[in-house]
Amino acid sequence: MRLKIVVLAGDGIGPEVTREATSILRAVAEFGGHEFTFVPALLGGVAITAEGTPLPQATLDVALDSDAVLLGAVGDNKFNALSPDKRPEAGLLQIRQALGGFANLRPSVAYPALAENSPLRPEVTKGADILFVRELLGGLYFGAPRWWNRDTNEAINTMRYTKDEVVRVAKVAFELASKRKKKVTSVDKANVLEVSQLWRAVVTEVAKDYPEVTLEHQLVDSMAMHLMNTPRSFDVVLTENLFGDILSDESGVITGSLGMLPSATIGGKVNLYEPVHGSAPDIAGTGKANPLGAILTAAMVLRHSAGLEADAAAIEAAVAQVLEAGHRTADIARGSNQQVVTTEQMGKLVHEALAHA
Amino acid sequence: MRLKIVVLAGDGIGPEVTREATSILRAVAEFGGHEFTFVPALLGGVAITAEGTPLPQATLDVALDSDAVLLGAVGDNKFNALSPDKRPEAGLLQIRQALGGFANLRPSVAYPALAENSPLRPEVTKGADILFVRELLGGLYFGAPRWWNRDTNEAINTMRYTKDEVVRVAKVAFELASKRKKKVTSVDKANVLEVSQLWRAVVTEVAKDYPEVTLEHQLVDSMAMHLMNTPRSFDVVLTENLFGDILSDESGVITGSLGMLPSATIGGKVNLYEPVHGSAPDIAGTGKANPLGAILTAAMVLRHSAGLEADAAAIEAAVAQVLEAGHRTADIARGSNQQVVTTEQMGKLVHEALAHA
Ligand SMILES: CC(C)[C@H](C(=O)O)[C@@H](O)C(=O)O
Ligand SMILES: CC(C)[C@H](C(=O)O)[C@@H](O)C(=O)O
Repeated sequence: MRLKIVVLAGDGIGPEVTREATSILRAVAEFGGHEFTFVPALLGGVAITAEGTPLPQATLDVALDSDAVLLGAVGDNKFNALSPDKRPEAGLLQIRQALGGFANLRPSVAYPALAENSPLRPEVTKGADILFVRELLGGLYFGAPRWWNRDTNEAINTMRYTKDEVVRVAKVAFELASKRKKKVTSVDKANVLEVSQLWRAVVTEVAKDYPEVTLEHQLVDSMAMHLMNTPRSFDVVLTENLFGDILSDESGVITGSLGMLPSATIGGKVNLYEPVHGSAPDIAGTGKANPLGAILTAAMVLRHSAGLEADAAAIEAAVAQVLEAGHRTADIARGSNQQVVTTEQMGKLVHEALAHA
Repeated sequence: MRLKIVVLAGDGIGPEVTREATSILRAVAEFGGHEFTFVPALLGGVAITAEGTPLPQATLDVALDSDAVLLGAVGDNKFNALSPDKRPEAGLLQIRQALGGFANLRPSVAYPALAENSPLRPEVTKGADILFVRELLGGLYFGAPRWWNRDTNEAINTMRYTKDEVVRVAKVAFELASKRKKKVTSVDKANVLEVSQLWRAVVTEVAKDYPEVTLEHQLVDSMAMHLMNTPRSFDVVLTENLFGDILSDESGVITGSLGMLPSATIGGKVNLYEPVHGSAPDIAGTGKANPLGAILTAAMVLRHSAGLEADAAAIEAAVAQVLEAGHRTADIARGSNQQVVTTEQMGKLVHEALAHA
């Protein structure tokens, strides 16, 4: 198996966590006799600094010519004064659009070893295993018109969806649900928004092709509450772009730390893989960053771009095992009986657990 | 003190909970020698059924000629097939707009007696006391253009804010914070949305007039997580319309039940008071509805429309006392040592606690 992976380490803790993720992928390649090549390229704040733009053409070209893109993190407070279209985040949105992946998969899983890390009670999170399918190329993120007129002191963004955009992401949700607990919860605000009415109608129609999957609709406000009250009652959660942004971060508390959460964006020309956490500039370079989000993201690369399901599952099992053994990066360290380790040490521990498996 | 209160009991459990709220207000009036008159009028599903429209002109007229409007709940599954502009909720949005209140105040408080009711750990919620100030007349709820074109299979909603709209609601947040813990957390998505950039710039400007209040900005996705991780670290939370809808419902888990949450909308011609919970048609008429959200909403009427702060606080203390004594409606009943009571009995208990105070 040959795989060309473009690595966009990005800003802040991006390079540190990505290093651990690629190191795990190298180990998998070596063990399985695969040929993975890693091509670094610039995105975000580092690209602005080096090239004057958050997504240089060279990055785009090499990314489009790869089998998978692995991203670290994007964002740097240095650029806060710039308008949205010039900031590091603009590079992220542009590359998401260029790669064409429209279905952003975000698992939110309760690890028994981290039960104490969640603000939620252990009996509430126990066994929770939610897969968010967030539409990633539509809605307020990309809708036009969009402007802030400093003369009239008025600003506009546009939430827009077409039927085709909803159909394709809904299909992904139902396909995934049919291999899991066979339930899709679709989130909208259909009692107020026309876009949500379209969303609900289309999802209801797509559901007809999946009679074995149960579909339920939830309003985004109630859903924000239900996710905390009864996380175990959800399987696949299907949302538009911004609702998914909010609800998947919220559901990070089920796992206990944003630093643990992976994501994969599929359905386009090239899949894009990124941990959910941000660039955390305040801890960059201190060895405090949690590489497990990036490592679990690497597992998703194997699952969704290489068909190496067993290897993906082995990485996930290795992560669970390292946590069971009491190893913790600073963000997830709680109480006694735990060894606080650095980013690099955590990477090594997963490495060893994987080698022994 | 004379007060003309228009009561829009609305749909589902609205009439039951509103009955308990007005009964408490009557008691306060009698005890204090005030003259409160209650004028019933139709809104929502009941108005559609009786008059063919969710907000009849007669309701609007009497509401605009009152000192305060007390709402029960609006929404009925019977009308789910109607487009947003014809549904019960449209009546709610229209009356919000007509009354002109732009600042929706939603307290989210942890009651010690209900600590077991939250999915959050008691040590996380303990002492939490958040006041959401949600902008209520702008954003996606009211922005134009808005449509769902069934021929082209496309739908649009518009998120729009002007500087003036942000200034006036921000001022309310800072005024309230200056009488509380002197911190405002403003929520936006300024790394992506132009509207949020305007929002952030304007809030930052307004903050200059309140040097004693600390301002912090949070992105809506991180905020959804922080509210669960560290609810105690927030005082006043200022949001645009939809972000406030989502985050205030989410924060209902701090209290433990949506059924407990009151709200007041101020700043317009006539203040509008509504519990946060919905019409819950599934339990309407069963005596299971929790009237405490409506009763605490009545306390807000006294505070914000009558200047009767002591009476408002007395109602709030009576509610806390009834909970301490172990009385619970079905939605908040947990474990032993608790007496499950009906909607009406709960109203009576608050009544008695108030009479003894
Ligand atoms: C950084 C930002 C543009 C991004 C988003 O809002 O999509 C992030 O919050 C995420 O969820 O991946
Ligand atoms: C019923 C609905 C229109 C309303 C809203 O979204 O404002 C409700 O959710 C609320 O929060 O008061």
